[in-house]
Amino acid sequence: MARDAARVETFSDGVFGVVLTVMAVELLQTGPARVGGRELPEALADAWPSYLAYVITFAIAGQVWIAHHNIWRYVVRVDQMLLVLNLLVLLFIATIPFTADLLSDNLRGGPTEQRLTAALYVGTVLGEALFVNLTWWWARRRGLLHPDLDPRLARAVARRMRLKPLLYLVAFAVVFVDPILSLCAYLLLVAFYLIGGPGDLRPYAHPAKDGSAA
Amino acid sequence: MARDAARVETFSDGVFGVVLTVMAVELLQTGPARVGGRELPEALADAWPSYLAYVITFAIAGQVWIAHHNIWRYVVRVDQMLLVLNLLVLLFIATIPFTADLLSDNLRGGPTEQRLTAALYVGTVLGEALFVNLTWWWARRRGLLHPDLDPRLARAVARRMRLKPLLYLVAFAVVFVDPILSLCAYLLLVAFYLIGGPGDLRPYAHPAKDGSAA
Amino acid sequence: MARDAARVETFSDGVFGVVLTVMAVELLQTGPARVGGRELPEALADAWPSYLAYVITFAIAGQVWIAHHNIWRYVVRVDQMLLVLNLLVLLFIATIPFTADLLSDNLRGGPTEQRLTAALYVGTVLGEALFVNLTWWWARRRGLLHPDLDPRLARAVARRMRLKPLLYLVAFAVVFVDPILSLCAYLLLVAFYLIGGPGDLRPYAHPAKDGSAA
Amino acid sequence: MARDAARVETFSDGVFGVVLTVMAVELLQTGPARVGGRELPEALADAWPSYLAYVITFAIAGQVWIAHHNIWRYVVRVDQMLLVLNLLVLLFIATIPFTADLLSDNLRGGPTEQRLTAALYVGTVLGEALFVNLTWWWARRRGLLHPDLDPRLARAVARRMRLKPLLYLVAFAVVFVDPILSLCAYLLLVAFYLIGGPGDLRPYAHPAKDGSAA
Repeated sequence: MARDAARVETFSDGVFGVVLTVMAVELLQTGPARVGGRELPEALADAWPSYLAYVITFAIAGQVWIAHHNIWRYVVRVDQMLLVLNLLVLLFIATIPFTADLLSDNLRGGPTEQRLTAALYVGTVLGEALFVNLTWWWARRRGLLHPDLDPRLARAVARRMRLKPLLYLVAFAVVFVDPILSLCAYLLLVAFYLIGGPGDLRPYAHPAKDGSAA
Repeated sequence: MARDAARVETFSDGVFGVVLTVMAVELLQTGPARVGGRELPEALADAWPSYLAYVITFAIAGQVWIAHHNIWRYVVRVDQMLLVLNLLVLLFIATIPFTADLLSDNLRGGPTEQRLTAALYVGTVLGEALFVNLTWWWARRRGLLHPDLDPRLARAVARRMRLKPLLYLVAFAVVFVDPILSLCAYLLLVAFYLIGGPGDLRPYAHPAKDGSAA
Repeated sequence: MARDAARVETFSDGVFGVVLTVMAVELLQTGPARVGGRELPEALADAWPSYLAYVITFAIAGQVWIAHHNIWRYVVRVDQMLLVLNLLVLLFIATIPFTADLLSDNLRGGPTEQRLTAALYVGTVLGEALFVNLTWWWARRRGLLHPDLDPRLARAVARRMRLKPLLYLVAFAVVFVDPILSLCAYLLLVAFYLIGGPGDLRPYAHPAKDGSAA
Repeated sequence: MARDAARVETFSDGVFGVVLTVMAVELLQTGPARVGGRELPEALADAWPSYLAYVITFAIAGQVWIAHHNIWRYVVRVDQMLLVLNLLVLLFIATIPFTADLLSDNLRGGPTEQRLTAALYVGTVLGEALFVNLTWWWARRRGLLHPDLDPRLARAVARRMRLKPLLYLVAFAVVFVDPILSLCAYLLLVAFYLIGGPGDLRPYAHPAKDGSAA
């Protein structure tokens, strides 16, 4: 019965794996090893936006992977719409390296560049958050979740997820004050969702689709 | 008994994962972040063919993944020929980013460019559709599908699949009228196959290889 | 009990997936879409070595994947040495795109280029064949295969595998006659191993690790 | 019960697969096939740092994969912290191609380049070793390992793992004597951990999470 969901996870993991490593591959291309005629320490130091883009991509895509993992472990059946919603989640996740790269490249640019790249980045994250929310909503509505899942937990997970796009919009608004501060707000948000919430918000303390209490 | 098919799925998912993310990686290379000396908003706007190629690739490869998933969930055994047919499906799928990139780059080119790139694109999609059809035909003929699968459903799936290459050829013919219209026809087709057909055409409402009714 | 082998397969499939798609990604880079100021049809035609390298890579890596799949479905336990041997198989497989690219780029070069690139290519394939042979030999010797596997089948598989490096050396020797002929010999060999041998050479007609007769 | 751990493995394998193949993809870009106007044998010979970086990356990432495999086969449950620790392991693993590339490119550079790149490389490997150690420590402390795992084995594994960062620091110190010697020391270390330890240090001779003695 869990078979369909298993393949969706494998497929999504393929996309996540590439997204997580793409920026590290980019380092090879833009790295100082390819730039002759300069001092290595200086060249390495100047490549800091690439390192930052790598860490941002890793943090955000890693956090989304954990969220994806937490959701899909409760899904025991899939339908066509759930697959389409999952594809749309992946569509936005796969653009994280691009927008994170633009964001870090333009952190010290003019206000137009800063706001435009921050808007693109927040657009990516909002799109991802929207379709993750819809995935959960659809799976609950269509009875695709594990029958033993406590409905109160399912609601609590939905509430916590719904909060995420709002918090990202707040982090985006901060770009009009200071772009670095806005980036810090993004990363704080990631850390907040990585740590997990108290009590009923932790999916792990509840019966998963294998029927065992963790 | 489902083990062989499981590995074919994992392997195919690896290819699908790279195909889906390749165009997003390309954005990093051709993106305005690498092009100095221009205004960022203008540079980002001019990169629209790359975004279009990304969305086309994602839509078509995502739809093919769902079709692949729907077929392989009924396959309980594999033989050498089924593996070869699956490799040929992947051979065409892996060229989707290349042909989608050419297509979107030449949408505003001369009629020769438009027709040539549309022909290449439709060739990729036809090749994929042909071998997906052969996969299903071979699996049915050799008794590699789940024994509980209703033969009427198997036939209905085959009928719907056979329609696909024909519809793609119609979409291709439209390029002689207008290339943008032809592209829209492609995307409409993808949407049509994403939504799924009525009643018996939906594989999900029937017993899958785990023997459970969805 | 099959769990260890399952993860080795997933991991190897990740490498195979990238190898199969790498040349298609390269098409994006070397493709005519990036070369301005030339006629598209001519530019596309001139890129034929890239298409050839893609097809060669796909054929050879696809064939090796099927061989890998056929071997590992009989493996029920792993030890450290089997993991190391599998890593060495992957080390050579991952260089197939590089050597196939060199080979196809130099098919119309001078005799030095032709022989050097053919030698590199055959070196890659020999290395892969050597370690695939050692994998099977080690798994048989250490009793890591499924206990129900017929020893005669295991020996027949080993015999057929041992033949492969010898046939590749013959195909390499042909490069001194004609490089195109040598390439054709390589591809014939791939086709020969894709089709599979008669009777007892077909792993699929025998009990696999799940204990079911195919 | 093993389900959660299974998906962590699939996801990590996606990252490992890309890391192992990235340097082979790089060969395609920096390879002599792209450099016109030179003799092919000479051009191929001059690209030796790329080959070295490929082999270093493969050796180190392959060894880490085996270690990851050995650890995770004992993990039967996951919690949020274990997922975060695993993400941090992957964060460092994904940078191995970049640091290995820098290291091999600067092996014949000045002492500043040699020491800087060796320091970056050892930083990557230390980060990976640190979080692998923390993964094991956390899993033991929180009771996430298989209940039948002998506590003495778990301790022995932890002891052997703790040794690794220390040995890497020694290998790094050698760079002040000779950079080539330091690199040899790294590779010897990898070989040491690939071969495995005596008796109780071999995870494979003990009951794994499927409950079967290997």
